Amino acid sequence: MMRARSDRMRRQYKTIVLIPTMGFLHEGHLSLIKEGHKHGDDMAVSIFVNPTQFGPEEDLESYPKNLERDLELLQEEGVDAVFTPDAKEIYGNKFQTYVTLEKLPNYLCGLSRPIHFRGVATVVAKLFNTVKPHVAVFGRKDYQQLVVIRQMVRDLDFGIEIIGAPTVREPDCLAMSSRNKYLTSEQRISALSLYKSLQKAKELIKSGVQDAATIIDWATELIQSYPETDIDYIAICDTETLVDIQIIDRPVQMALAVRIGKARLIDNMLLNP
Amino acid sequence: MMRARSDRMRRQYKTIVLIPTMGFLHEGHLSLIKEGHKHGDDMAVSIFVNPTQFGPEEDLESYPKNLERDLELLQEEGVDAVFTPDAKEIYGNKFQTYVTLEKLPNYLCGLSRPIHFRGVATVVAKLFNTVKPHVAVFGRKDYQQLVVIRQMVRDLDFGIEIIGAPTVREPDCLAMSSRNKYLTSEQRISALSLYKSLQKAKELIKSGVQDAATIIDWATELIQSYPETDIDYIAICDTETLVDIQIIDRPVQMALAVRIGKARLIDNMLLNP
Repeated sequence: MMRARSDRMRRQYKTIVLIPTMGFLHEGHLSLIKEGHKHGDDMAVSIFVNPTQFGPEEDLESYPKNLERDLELLQEEGVDAVFTPDAKEIYGNKFQTYVTLEKLPNYLCGLSRPIHFRGVATVVAKLFNTVKPHVAVFGRKDYQQLVVIRQMVRDLDFGIEIIGAPTVREPDCLAMSSRNKYLTSEQRISALSLYKSLQKAKELIKSGVQDAATIIDWATELIQSYPETDIDYIAICDTETLVDIQIIDRPVQMALAVRIGKARLIDNMLLNP
Repeated sequence: MMRARSDRMRRQYKTIVLIPTMGFLHEGHLSLIKEGHKHGDDMAVSIFVNPTQFGPEEDLESYPKNLERDLELLQEEGVDAVFTPDAKEIYGNKFQTYVTLEKLPNYLCGLSRPIHFRGVATVVAKLFNTVKPHVAVFGRKDYQQLVVIRQMVRDLDFGIEIIGAPTVREPDCLAMSSRNKYLTSEQRISALSLYKSLQKAKELIKSGVQDAATIIDWATELIQSYPETDIDYIAICDTETLVDIQIIDRPVQMALAVRIGKARLIDNMLLNP
């Protein structure tokens, strides 16, 4: 049905924009839709909590949901089509085909989430084939995901323009995420340490520090000074390959993941020397 | 350019048929095109010797070519578009994304050609995304390839109808293949043993044999009675999963691969009890 609709829209010279989401929408998602409106005139949003991108110990079962509210929000945002498949529709019982990347998943989040990006690339390929968008918008908050999708689109010739939209933050600068819901009020304060460490990095670079290890040490110390923080990784890496960088003599990506209580939070920032 | 053309054809309500080939066309390929004409009104043929489906010890470098003749034949067959990309265009130097199947490549040809079906699935996904066909035709001669492509299309929601076209044979029943060119006239006689063993299996089943191992023994003996034959595998398997079958109490696929000189030949047949 989505496919037939897309074929019709394409015949009418509409430019289809897809925003893939896992639902439980917040301002971050809505900003993707606002960005999307600039790039096309037929807006499709998918809501699908994709089981293949969750590891066995992860939060697939507890991932927050509120479909009714999501649909209201999407209507307010002028979305033309909402695609809410269920897992049985997406993964038949003989399912066995995955889109795999050889290098990009071997960095950052991929190290502690070994099947995550295979699941992401696969489901996004399926959504692309079903919705047939001209443009798709992803948040820069999930930076590695954005890089993976761009690479997949190039490598498999999807011919889809991928837009990376800026991270939307709470007033105190915590990056918006459906997983912030998992935080207690004490943990919520510790969660600010992610952004603070990125800001600290920016200041250090401004003051002349070029050595990535020095910056990572500062960031580590800062985050560890907050209760209940368990650092998964802090990395300073090439913006495209995600390979670690030692000396910051060009724009680099700083990315980090920290477990706080039940939440695993991520954030990242482009750093300019 | 192929993509823009396909978008135009789709807007004109044309039904695009794609026949992916590696060139050096023979009657087998032409029969795919004839079959294709029944299913659509815009016929695209790709010619691409895909490096990622050849193992390091295989015949990528020596694979026969004759582009000029191929183009003449395609013109005679009423083909509307020919896509002849080169390897650099298909695989950029940062290429790293593959379409992988978890089960089907673990049988038959996949055992001696471990990266073959990953290469096939990946390049066909790329061709599908570029040419955007409604229908694609593959020969049943490459039976495992056909099963792999059907599975990929289902799993990744390509929404493309896959047609399997009958194997075309020489007057003496050798399955047509570009690789038959590698055979000396003595080896050409040995090559008949593949079809003869399939025929023998058919007769045995007709005479009441139900045990797959007995049939495989007969076929092995028959093939080994010809000079220079080196059996890669002889299998009797489920038509969809390719899992070995012991008792032939339903239609099954018999498939085999035999090395003869520089050629590795394959053939297969549906066997009905």
